[in-house]
Amino acid sequence: METTTKRTAMALSSETLLAHYQGHRNLTRRTIEAFPEKEFFSHNIGGMRTFAEMVMELLGIAGPGLQEIVSEKSAPLDEHVDHGNSKAKILKLWDEATEQINVLWPQIPTERFQEKILLFGMYEGTIISSILYFIDNEIHHRGQGFVYLRSLGIEPAAFYER
Amino acid sequence: METTTKRTAMALSSETLLAHYQGHRNLTRRTIEAFPEKEFFSHNIGGMRTFAEMVMELLGIAGPGLQEIVSEKSAPLDEHVDHGNSKAKILKLWDEATEQINVLWPQIPTERFQEKILLFGMYEGTIISSILYFIDNEIHHRGQGFVYLRSLGIEPAAFYER
Repeated sequence: METTTKRTAMALSSETLLAHYQGHRNLTRRTIEAFPEKEFFSHNIGGMRTFAEMVMELLGIAGPGLQEIVSEKSAPLDEHVDHGNSKAKILKLWDEATEQINVLWPQIPTERFQEKILLFGMYEGTIISSILYFIDNEIHHRGQGFVYLRSLGIEPAAFYER
Repeated sequence: METTTKRTAMALSSETLLAHYQGHRNLTRRTIEAFPEKEFFSHNIGGMRTFAEMVMELLGIAGPGLQEIVSEKSAPLDEHVDHGNSKAKILKLWDEATEQINVLWPQIPTERFQEKILLFGMYEGTIISSILYFIDNEIHHRGQGFVYLRSLGIEPAAFYER
């Protein structure tokens, strides 16, 4: 019985995961800030996307993804933002997404985390696997943004500061 | 009372987190494999470390970090490996760490995840925050490895394949 208890016990609370996600989003925000405006929208390496394009993907996933999880209404992924090459516009959208996530997150009853979903009508998984994907995908692309910054001679924020 | 239940409910099991970590480690393994041997040990961008140096950090953290969590005996972080510029040697150590993690992980009782630790005698946190850091740090550096590969004209494995 002890084994069974351990095997089904849980490691991470919903609140801790939200704080973890927002900590990462805060570091990504500081990574956006560190880019010169021109290079944010133009610099790339090896034919990859600009950091602005990666950030638009993150914006398309975070708020809309949680909205879909909460409302159970699916919409296609939209990675486009009319940013007008303005970092301030992107940062404003980033901050709005931060608020939206804080409002939506507590509306996910924890018993739903194992529920199967088809996010953006395309991506099969559970709610928890989808949310972990949001976070991992952001860390992955921000790591790439760090290389872009270094290649521009700019020191990124410390990875461990959130 | 309903609110209290929700607030303390848990989102992620220990088993799911282990599978998540090993899925990421499998993708990192394929990222190491994708590098030409010479560039794995020599290529960098913007004065950053080589991917081999980042991978030695990951090897220094994963097995030894879990060993410390399980044994409660602290040792300094060691990011050095006598690799002799051999990718095969690194991959062998990677696979040994995979096995070590699988053996050690179930020895962490889930009730310990919130326990405070000072990992490698230096890094303050809880067991769960430390393990999330292991994973996030690996995703971060692997994302950087992806840029190195792209800058060499090599297509990395798909991020969503684990």
